[in-house]
Amino acid sequence: MSGMSFNSENNFYYSPMAYTARCSSVVPSPTPIVRPNGMYKSSGDSLPQFQPTRKLDYELELAFFISNPVPSGTIVSPESAEEHIFGYVLMNDWSARDIQMYESLPVGPLNCKAFGTTISPWVVMPEALAHARTEPRNQRARKDQIPAHLKQDNLSQSTYEITCHAFLQRSGSEVAKPVSTSSTAHMFWSPGQLLAHRASTGCGLLTGELIGLGTVSSPEELWPDKSLERRGCLFEITNDGKEDVNINDIGGRWLEDGDIVVLEAWAPGDDGVKIGFGKVSGRVLPETSSSMLKTTNKNGTHI
Amino acid sequence: MSGMSFNSENNFYYSPMAYTARCSSVVPSPTPIVRPNGMYKSSGDSLPQFQPTRKLDYELELAFFISNPVPSGTIVSPESAEEHIFGYVLMNDWSARDIQMYESLPVGPLNCKAFGTTISPWVVMPEALAHARTEPRNQRARKDQIPAHLKQDNLSQSTYEITCHAFLQRSGSEVAKPVSTSSTAHMFWSPGQLLAHRASTGCGLLTGELIGLGTVSSPEELWPDKSLERRGCLFEITNDGKEDVNINDIGGRWLEDGDIVVLEAWAPGDDGVKIGFGKVSGRVLPETSSSMLKTTNKNGTHI
Repeated sequence: MSGMSFNSENNFYYSPMAYTARCSSVVPSPTPIVRPNGMYKSSGDSLPQFQPTRKLDYELELAFFISNPVPSGTIVSPESAEEHIFGYVLMNDWSARDIQMYESLPVGPLNCKAFGTTISPWVVMPEALAHARTEPRNQRARKDQIPAHLKQDNLSQSTYEITCHAFLQRSGSEVAKPVSTSSTAHMFWSPGQLLAHRASTGCGLLTGELIGLGTVSSPEELWPDKSLERRGCLFEITNDGKEDVNINDIGGRWLEDGDIVVLEAWAPGDDGVKIGFGKVSGRVLPETSSSMLKTTNKNGTHI
Repeated sequence: MSGMSFNSENNFYYSPMAYTARCSSVVPSPTPIVRPNGMYKSSGDSLPQFQPTRKLDYELELAFFISNPVPSGTIVSPESAEEHIFGYVLMNDWSARDIQMYESLPVGPLNCKAFGTTISPWVVMPEALAHARTEPRNQRARKDQIPAHLKQDNLSQSTYEITCHAFLQRSGSEVAKPVSTSSTAHMFWSPGQLLAHRASTGCGLLTGELIGLGTVSSPEELWPDKSLERRGCLFEITNDGKEDVNINDIGGRWLEDGDIVVLEAWAPGDDGVKIGFGKVSGRVLPETSSSMLKTTNKNGTHI
């Protein structure tokens, strides 16, 4: 599984920048998420410590499963890439930003993204999203920079206009309050381009692989309604915890124990019908203290 | 699969730094390796280009397969970690250094390590390596910095003294000439510590996972014989291509088309017997030009 990361690095506009992640921690909604322990240095620490994350975040993402595999030694054009996509899920790529910063050099995310990745109850087929087909809005202006293996003939119909919503229900509140709204049409790369880039070494792609398209955030210039937050994770909303969230009476900078994050997404269907993915929800459970953590005995059973 | 990376970053000495990689590109010896295409900027390029790597490298590594899985939500101590290890293979984690540099920020290796990872014909059981048990040589001096989840009671018997050899047979030569010799006893972290760290978020580990222990390079202060190269990849030997190899009449800085890399490793057994892993070899084939690359049609078959 790869989570594609939207970021402001220049390289991102020449080819997708992404990391590979674990499949063992992918869970269906509404599996609770335990606040993970990991290595990082807090402000008071003289050395890095193994401790619970204090910068727990969600990431609102669209992702797809591979059905028809790509054989090793084979490359795929962005157009034909779609023939390998089984269907789409809505995904919460939970992230621990303090652990992520610690792990960022020299080889990037490891444990910071390996404690829970929640996917929607429904896998939506590309056929059901036919009415949502559109052009990736940001790519046209940079079209001349797209490398040959990612040039897409059918660019104007290569991605989807799916409106994504994130809600947060804080402990003590009885409702999940809206935090952000954004559109997958604003993601720079199309799903076909992401798949084509991932396969471009000839590595082959296997049936069942899950490929994330990156956090769905709508750029400011394409989202003039300032009353709505348009960024799909707290890292972007709070500028890495430098500002409070301050949306719908929701304060703080990161996820708290007891918080329930709910994601929804809607695509336009035939005759005004709306096509959804089901709710992607997960409640944050407090960290397990080291003394409470289960360990395994020699037979691998809990003791 | 994770490839653990030995490096000089300070964080490496507090916990292992590693990345997650693909399983679709793991191949058995002696599968040939095609020079991959990838994104990077050559000295003459004004923009990053999709082009064949010019910094093709090997990495001599030891790796292990998981047998008994680690259930989700469970952590494992470094001592009990060994009960989850099925056996060890010798591994060549082929790498494209120019693509790796391009991908390094913000999320690390993706396609630069996803075009071939060669494993040995034999998986050697931990029981067969009993006589090779030893202490990780570099850890004692930094013992007080090891975080709680990685402290290992049986540290003095936690890793292996396995002597590793890399050979290079250049096109036109009839023999594979020795390039380097190094010992797994000089890797900083023990296999149990690597497994414990990987499982420390509660992510669970699955049967069949392959975990690399990082490039086997022996530090200069523990390897006083200057007539032998002691670093397990060209990146380290040539200081990222700044110097020539210059060993046994082998010149140049990176792997050339036609080169055959051969890895061997030997562990001491009972009564002076030597235990091997079989040869890990792979020949470098020239890149496939874009016009020659196979693509798939709608049915996923080659056209």
